[in-house]
Amino acid sequence: MPTAFPSPVPAIPTAPLTAQLRDALRAIVGEKGLIEDDHGKRPFVTDWRGLLVGAAGAVVRPGSTEEVSKVVRLCHEHGVAIVPQGGNTGLMGGATPWPAHTGIVLSLARMNRVLDVDPVGYAMTVEAGCVLQTLQETAAAHDRFLPLSLGAQGSCMIGGNLSTNAGGVQVLRYGNARNLVLGLEVVMPNGEVWNGLRALKKDNTGYDLKHLFMGAEGTLGIITRAVLKLWPAPKDVCTAWLAVRDPRAALEILSEAHAASEDNVGSCELLSRAAIDLVMRHIPGVQDPLKAETPWYLLLEWSSSRPRQEGAAGMSEKLEQFLEGQLEAGRVLDAVIAQTVSQSRNMWRIREAMAEASRAEGPGLSYDISVAISRIPEFVDKGLKAVLDILPSIRPYPLGHIGDGNLHFSFMGPEGMDQQTLNQYTAASTRAVNDLVTSMGGSISAEHGIGIEKLDELSHYRSRTELDIMRTIKRALDPQNIMNPGKVLRV
Amino acid sequence: MPTAFPSPVPAIPTAPLTAQLRDALRAIVGEKGLIEDDHGKRPFVTDWRGLLVGAAGAVVRPGSTEEVSKVVRLCHEHGVAIVPQGGNTGLMGGATPWPAHTGIVLSLARMNRVLDVDPVGYAMTVEAGCVLQTLQETAAAHDRFLPLSLGAQGSCMIGGNLSTNAGGVQVLRYGNARNLVLGLEVVMPNGEVWNGLRALKKDNTGYDLKHLFMGAEGTLGIITRAVLKLWPAPKDVCTAWLAVRDPRAALEILSEAHAASEDNVGSCELLSRAAIDLVMRHIPGVQDPLKAETPWYLLLEWSSSRPRQEGAAGMSEKLEQFLEGQLEAGRVLDAVIAQTVSQSRNMWRIREAMAEASRAEGPGLSYDISVAISRIPEFVDKGLKAVLDILPSIRPYPLGHIGDGNLHFSFMGPEGMDQQTLNQYTAASTRAVNDLVTSMGGSISAEHGIGIEKLDELSHYRSRTELDIMRTIKRALDPQNIMNPGKVLRV
Repeated sequence: MPTAFPSPVPAIPTAPLTAQLRDALRAIVGEKGLIEDDHGKRPFVTDWRGLLVGAAGAVVRPGSTEEVSKVVRLCHEHGVAIVPQGGNTGLMGGATPWPAHTGIVLSLARMNRVLDVDPVGYAMTVEAGCVLQTLQETAAAHDRFLPLSLGAQGSCMIGGNLSTNAGGVQVLRYGNARNLVLGLEVVMPNGEVWNGLRALKKDNTGYDLKHLFMGAEGTLGIITRAVLKLWPAPKDVCTAWLAVRDPRAALEILSEAHAASEDNVGSCELLSRAAIDLVMRHIPGVQDPLKAETPWYLLLEWSSSRPRQEGAAGMSEKLEQFLEGQLEAGRVLDAVIAQTVSQSRNMWRIREAMAEASRAEGPGLSYDISVAISRIPEFVDKGLKAVLDILPSIRPYPLGHIGDGNLHFSFMGPEGMDQQTLNQYTAASTRAVNDLVTSMGGSISAEHGIGIEKLDELSHYRSRTELDIMRTIKRALDPQNIMNPGKVLRV
Repeated sequence: MPTAFPSPVPAIPTAPLTAQLRDALRAIVGEKGLIEDDHGKRPFVTDWRGLLVGAAGAVVRPGSTEEVSKVVRLCHEHGVAIVPQGGNTGLMGGATPWPAHTGIVLSLARMNRVLDVDPVGYAMTVEAGCVLQTLQETAAAHDRFLPLSLGAQGSCMIGGNLSTNAGGVQVLRYGNARNLVLGLEVVMPNGEVWNGLRALKKDNTGYDLKHLFMGAEGTLGIITRAVLKLWPAPKDVCTAWLAVRDPRAALEILSEAHAASEDNVGSCELLSRAAIDLVMRHIPGVQDPLKAETPWYLLLEWSSSRPRQEGAAGMSEKLEQFLEGQLEAGRVLDAVIAQTVSQSRNMWRIREAMAEASRAEGPGLSYDISVAISRIPEFVDKGLKAVLDILPSIRPYPLGHIGDGNLHFSFMGPEGMDQQTLNQYTAASTRAVNDLVTSMGGSISAEHGIGIEKLDELSHYRSRTELDIMRTIKRALDPQNIMNPGKVLRV
């Protein structure tokens, strides 16, 4: 995990923000919409981990699509570069300007209105700067469910979630962020507004532009509004904690769980004993649900939007019956079903506190990889061997969204080793893991994106043809390279 | 519904297929891969309705991605235009060459191998020329489900299904064709092969190229292989036929059915009495399941991948209980639950035989539109009025995928009116319907695409900004305009 900007610095536009341009920006967004002092700009030019510190001529905070459009048009006319930013919670530096950036950071934070909720049509129209958790709560208040859930939900914004095609713990059932979108509004690099805000389940009229902007990390345009799909609110939820034989057993359990739950598997998270222990060591008030003679555990949640019917089997009865079968089959060694909401919350807390716990433990490495689901066990075996060959005393604590084929393949540095010493092994380890992932047809960034951090990884591991197609699209839509330059691709 | 090519003819490349090029093509695909005689070419240059008859210098039938790549590279070097074609079952002429076409039709039909089935990973890798029904059967043989189902499934090919982002009767639950795809392989307009055949649920590494090719109707490249997602096979299926108060009631029924079925609503098809009567009149052996004092009926199917458990409520008990509630609420006037497979098949036959029945009845009009689901009732009211204002004796028989907001808004010509006379009203009627759809934020082609037929409709109803973005992408990826020219967009 590199902790500095890659080199060389990519070619990015360096047109300065002249006094005249600053006045023009102020005229568009007003005094409160323009931040020019270093202290005020600092949180916008620093990534949330504090590892990347960039620069900007100013931070611009428009309050409407019209203002975004005017700001972008002005920048376009003067070749000024733009870094769009939502909640600034990304892990790859996608929202952080390069130190050589002389243009603006365009924050969507003031555009935080829910414009429409349509419970019958299962849709909600929102502005890009809405905080994810606010949207979850808005949906719930209408007896609906917005199935996007991730650690940063209290501060990340939906525009950023969509621009990075965010993942999280509900992808297994509902898909990535891109699957939750019916329509988008995007301000293009020339300032024009593409109104694709259609609340349509079906629309086969030409190229599907919305999918191009989702996952482009703001390099092709700025998402300003979206129509999100909603789902029925879960009414009968059952969470279980399983000690499982090995990752292959976990996979077989999940495979059978689909049918047994009537396609009601909500989440399926694999955790290693080492990962659980890390949380137990550093996070107060968390209980270990289960100790067994295995290094592998599974957090399994089934949920249904149908309320429990009197006299009929609910999720918990179905899950219990299922687990009995899995115990007999030798895949599950032991299991606990949460009997109360607080037991369920405790299980989830273990999963969610992982980042916090690993930070408390000390320096480490983590890879956000994916492979075809059925190849997860093979990846775990080979990946552990590859990294342990490089640094035998490193301490693995793999975990992840096994149902998505997505592992957070994580390691704590050897006991007592400082960050600088660990860094000496990072390049070799990263290369070994990414080579393995690539040889297995996998992805070197399953849900976190490319941003700045993986700029050179992407160009190393993707084919020339694929990079050419991406560059052709980028150059065609943003010929001046003003839109989030130096991210995703070296143009 | 125009029955001829729109005019003016769009600018398409007219480089001829010289004797030298023919030899070169023959060297790539072999004697049996090249069709040059008029009789042999005829089925490939005619759309399946027989309404559009184009031309081609030759039909080329490569047997592998490598051959496709070589053919396209050759065409690229000589500026020869290419019309990719699968099963040639499209309704919009997307696979039919223009009469001015001097290049090739590139048929994928020989590339019909299933390359891999991975039941544990719920994925299947296939070549573009596989017939959809073969793939459904292959999935079923592995106790898995490929949820793409449409009238042409016995002859349409998966490459075409993906290129047009096909819809069908299972979109409500599983999404359009694009939602069934994990990875693609595409031969680009310069002959290079983009290998995006990743069997990954999650992959956030740069722009999502696969979504760009799906729905592009072969204008940006040729899909040669795909990794498809599979689902658990349905094990407990219940079909019902409902007489409903009106379209608004149908919508409310569906809205409540999601939760009541535990998200197991498989299909929900709205049919008007007139549509049902059309089938009764022309299709032998079909039974009318139910007669009631209402012009609106609903075909509702719930299905679960969990086999019926002894002593527990299955789909049919749950559906019965649900329908009782809906009867009490006055939304459902009467209902029949299929008790046997043949009763269920009879219900589906009514829905599926609609095209056959309407052809037998005589000349008509049909619009494949979508609006936000909650606005379907409003659309039905206003749309019927708009068309009846133009031709009061026209006979509406609306039906459609109400859960997708997608209606096949269909009309039989007045009793005894011939096609030519009806054609005099077509332009006004089409304009009225499409204006209404557009004013309601809907789509003028929900699932059938643009092809040749709606070329000018698209440019009339989409914003200049949207068309500019599409054209920019097309020109960037296919600067010579050799890939399915004159489709989707006038470049």
